[in-house]
Amino acid sequence: MPTEPLLADALGAIARDIDGMFDALLPSQGRLAAAMRHAAIGGGKRLRPLLLTATAAMHGADRTHAMRAAVAIEAIHAYSLVHDDLPCMDDDAMRHGKPSTHIAFGEAMAVLAGDALQSFAFEVLSDPATSGDPFVRAEMVQVLALASGAQGMVGGQVLDIEGEGQALDLPAITRMQQLKTGALLSAAVEMGAVLGKLPAEGRMHLKGYARDIGLAFQIADDLLDHAGDETKAGKALRKDAEAGKQTFVAALGADRAREQARMLVDQAIAHLGSYGQEADLLRAVARYIVERDH
Amino acid sequence: MPTEPLLADALGAIARDIDGMFDALLPSQGRLAAAMRHAAIGGGKRLRPLLLTATAAMHGADRTHAMRAAVAIEAIHAYSLVHDDLPCMDDDAMRHGKPSTHIAFGEAMAVLAGDALQSFAFEVLSDPATSGDPFVRAEMVQVLALASGAQGMVGGQVLDIEGEGQALDLPAITRMQQLKTGALLSAAVEMGAVLGKLPAEGRMHLKGYARDIGLAFQIADDLLDHAGDETKAGKALRKDAEAGKQTFVAALGADRAREQARMLVDQAIAHLGSYGQEADLLRAVARYIVERDH
Repeated sequence: MPTEPLLADALGAIARDIDGMFDALLPSQGRLAAAMRHAAIGGGKRLRPLLLTATAAMHGADRTHAMRAAVAIEAIHAYSLVHDDLPCMDDDAMRHGKPSTHIAFGEAMAVLAGDALQSFAFEVLSDPATSGDPFVRAEMVQVLALASGAQGMVGGQVLDIEGEGQALDLPAITRMQQLKTGALLSAAVEMGAVLGKLPAEGRMHLKGYARDIGLAFQIADDLLDHAGDETKAGKALRKDAEAGKQTFVAALGADRAREQARMLVDQAIAHLGSYGQEADLLRAVARYIVERDH
Repeated sequence: MPTEPLLADALGAIARDIDGMFDALLPSQGRLAAAMRHAAIGGGKRLRPLLLTATAAMHGADRTHAMRAAVAIEAIHAYSLVHDDLPCMDDDAMRHGKPSTHIAFGEAMAVLAGDALQSFAFEVLSDPATSGDPFVRAEMVQVLALASGAQGMVGGQVLDIEGEGQALDLPAITRMQQLKTGALLSAAVEMGAVLGKLPAEGRMHLKGYARDIGLAFQIADDLLDHAGDETKAGKALRKDAEAGKQTFVAALGADRAREQARMLVDQAIAHLGSYGQEADLLRAVARYIVERDH
């Protein structure tokens, strides 16, 4: 658990509130609804919701609006894990300490629950309850759709699959991870800024922060996969090396990778130089990313 | 081929223009882009784009805006076919006379190409190039997301899978088909109305039209699956009966099903009574739906 009280409180609140919001907004009848709920509720660090709501709060946005947008981006993250875990992809039977969605509901239902979670994300974002300003709604859809698709998260997953068993160099691994994980973390921060009506030209430092913590997060993930505790992680570890996946640890070795992650965190915090204590939560998130043990 | 010249021209134009628009807007580099293009370009009747652009034109919307919205809804339709054809779903090796996406690119790539096509749809819709009015963009996203997800197309696919091998009654089959096929056809007409800035209360007759042609379309599809020509269809037929799928033909018999489809077409055309000749294309589409041979 993080030692900084500000962050510990924020992580606890976001975990509870995101589950409550998913419970209120997801469909509730039938097996498809059950599979979507299995995939979305009760798991994960809720890092994307935390980044989105913290950035929105920094810029004076309404908390309920931000929570709805946070549920949308977390639905995209949740669907990507459901599809990632499928037998034809990473073939993972456990996720967040529970059976993966295809183990619990079958493969066809896992494909469809993932598909429906993606639609759900855009349904929530485009709902007038998420912002009274249609420009804000349309822009959040634009940011999230770009970050999710072929030039974002899915594009990164393809590079990851295509890179298996090949010796990628550091720039290629960085590019793959920037798409696979970084695009959505960056979208979380940008959506918070859109909700706070920060103009596009004012978002550069926030995007720099997101890019740096995205890479630091992935390096920390690689280090945990390399040396972490399966019980805490709630999933099988050391599968990356078995699958011949290209990771920062494989390319740099564990010590240099750890050093690199710390440097990225310092750099991320430096991007927040123009903000005062209203950005303390984003600073704490950056530090937490490399210190967490799962 | 349809005999009505108005319709024949419109079908030819939409097939060409949709392919051109997909070619211009889809990513072009790498295997993911190739899989998305394989799934989206050069196949299908483009019925949803035709309905969307015809309704938009009836209400004075810009043709380029309507074509972009049409590409978005067709991307949703295309992704659903890619995922439907997967081995864990309907396990179909042929689609539109070509190998299915998972046959041509592998299962993992087919899952990801489908996922990216869904994101692409919302990326295109929320782009200012699709409408200068953010309210129109946000509302089209809302209509398409609702029609695609758990309460629409994906919900219908789940009912279809769950109904396999069971004897569903006619209301249950109707409900399943209204979600599986009808929701997206209805969204096509509604998105055209949104682009034409027709207020929500003026869309009732258009939605009635869409509901009726949606069911007529599905009955015609069941009849073609029952007695059609595999070469013209470009896919394997008579798989429904083998899979124990619940169809209108199974519930009603072929003759009564054919009669029911004709009645629905008359009813659909009656919904257009308040329109003059500007709705002739929608009337021709309704007749075509039951007369087509593939």
